[in-house]
Amino acid sequence: MNDLEKLDAVRAMRWLDGSLELLDQRALPQQEIWLRLNSVRDVADAIRDMVVRGAPAIGVTAAYGCVLAAAERHAAAPGGWRQGIEADLDTLGAARPTAVNLHWAIRRMRDVIQQCDGDPVPALLREAEAIHREDIEANRRMGELGAPFLQGSEVVLTHCNTGSLATGGFGTALGVIRSAWSRGFIQSIYAAETRPWLQGSRLTAWELQQDGIPATIITDSAAAHLMAAGGVGWVVVGADRITAAGDVANKIGTYSHAIAARYHGLGFMVVAPTSTIDRDITDAAAIPIEERNAAELLSLAGNATAPLGSAAYNPVFDITPAGLVDVLVTEKGVVENPDLASVAALFEA
Amino acid sequence: MNDLEKLDAVRAMRWLDGSLELLDQRALPQQEIWLRLNSVRDVADAIRDMVVRGAPAIGVTAAYGCVLAAAERHAAAPGGWRQGIEADLDTLGAARPTAVNLHWAIRRMRDVIQQCDGDPVPALLREAEAIHREDIEANRRMGELGAPFLQGSEVVLTHCNTGSLATGGFGTALGVIRSAWSRGFIQSIYAAETRPWLQGSRLTAWELQQDGIPATIITDSAAAHLMAAGGVGWVVVGADRITAAGDVANKIGTYSHAIAARYHGLGFMVVAPTSTIDRDITDAAAIPIEERNAAELLSLAGNATAPLGSAAYNPVFDITPAGLVDVLVTEKGVVENPDLASVAALFEA
Repeated sequence: MNDLEKLDAVRAMRWLDGSLELLDQRALPQQEIWLRLNSVRDVADAIRDMVVRGAPAIGVTAAYGCVLAAAERHAAAPGGWRQGIEADLDTLGAARPTAVNLHWAIRRMRDVIQQCDGDPVPALLREAEAIHREDIEANRRMGELGAPFLQGSEVVLTHCNTGSLATGGFGTALGVIRSAWSRGFIQSIYAAETRPWLQGSRLTAWELQQDGIPATIITDSAAAHLMAAGGVGWVVVGADRITAAGDVANKIGTYSHAIAARYHGLGFMVVAPTSTIDRDITDAAAIPIEERNAAELLSLAGNATAPLGSAAYNPVFDITPAGLVDVLVTEKGVVENPDLASVAALFEA
Repeated sequence: MNDLEKLDAVRAMRWLDGSLELLDQRALPQQEIWLRLNSVRDVADAIRDMVVRGAPAIGVTAAYGCVLAAAERHAAAPGGWRQGIEADLDTLGAARPTAVNLHWAIRRMRDVIQQCDGDPVPALLREAEAIHREDIEANRRMGELGAPFLQGSEVVLTHCNTGSLATGGFGTALGVIRSAWSRGFIQSIYAAETRPWLQGSRLTAWELQQDGIPATIITDSAAAHLMAAGGVGWVVVGADRITAAGDVANKIGTYSHAIAARYHGLGFMVVAPTSTIDRDITDAAAIPIEERNAAELLSLAGNATAPLGSAAYNPVFDITPAGLVDVLVTEKGVVENPDLASVAALFEA
């Protein structure tokens, strides 16, 4: 058994002296660089350029971005600061298309913007900090709810990074894994490297190393081979957007793991706060799947990995249909075999 | 329609003035470097270090390696050259464990070694050149046999490199794709990048570029997403060893594609000469699955892609059970839904 409180050494963002600081996830694990952001445009750029990534972390970051937007607008025109701020929120909201938490956080901040009098910064900062704190609390709650499912699994496999770096702190899928690890439920954690951006090998391995949790990196394509070898009990992943019907948009490769898990009769668990559920969408085809630059795939650290002039297709999310999801863990409760009714029931409790 | 004869511009190896020259596949696509090998130890090293890779290419290379072994032994002791050559063949045979073509080629060369009188080099060189020529002929024949299956597929997906670089010339799976392309049967070719060594993006994309055949690179983990999007008709792959029951050892990731192809109701084709079939094995668990150094996974071109001290598991082949193979194409004929009886029948024709 390990002390769970100590297994959460990393943070992706912090508010300091009126600025937002982000740990530059592009530079990890080689360098730990904190970037200091003072404008909403800087925040939108940082989200788009993946200084910060992970649906919940994007949401928290955007909330702080709204504080910076209001601070700028209020400093420029104390009496008319609301004018133009909607454009700032649009800029933030357009930074990345797939993670719905971005829009969810902006909506919460907009509600406060509409209500506050005088200097909006204190109230908005309180709301952003609440979003941040609630995200960590949700993650810890999901850790408690999800961990028991993993009991007796020799090996769990995870994809991408869903830990403290991808959230306000602690993590979604990685939070469940942390919790299961601290309770001695699991023996071994495999992290799929997650091409092309290598969130698994660059971020998850680094984050677990900070916590002293051993992990083994595999290529994404070795997951099915690992499953066939036996020992894997569960695949545990996060989500960027979940439809009202329980279909899951998540990092490219998730769908492949889900198909392979089903083929081998293994459990497939999705861990996400309810802020990731897009209740307006029942058809997963309505989720915008971001395609990023081919260069992410064709070069690494400035070295070409393909001939000049190569074409590439770089969708960075995929859709796992609800039928392949065995367990959906949210902070409001756990749903097995999610569907329209059981997902809706989460919000009625 | 394209001229098939022109769609085969690349060679992985050539015999020149008593030496074997190999195109260094570690340096592609940035540099085209031909290495000149004069000893059997150089050849074994080149196979182990992946200067040359791909089961049929390894077989052809090993055959030329046997010529160099005999030349060295004969030069040192014209009367007793056979002494010690068995150790040379063992060195060659131990260079890589999974591809059975290596052993197949050495066995053919050993038969000639046992028969020849006087200077063994001319007879052995004739045999090595025959193995090389027959491999190209087998590939062209497989291209003819396999291509009709792809007719009407908008998109085909391939994994790893199975082209001229992986064979004596023309290719196995990529030979079928070349043949189908030249006949106008297919519109679009996707190449999975094939982590960790990137045979797909480094080698297949380069080789097709030499021939003017357009290809699009995807991450391995985007394959299932591509299949779900529709349009993919077939997944076409090679093999490193096929059991008598039709189970297929091939590059890591193949199994994942096979599971996803079945899940989406798509065709899964394996293209390999009968020299890849190991008739001594019916249980795929008896195939040695090579694990290579973790460094292949944890760094790229000298840049770390994971924190120092990370653990990695790097199996470079996996097993696709015969039940997931829709079509096995060999130079002796095509087998649908391969099993013990239908694979055996290939050798009775």
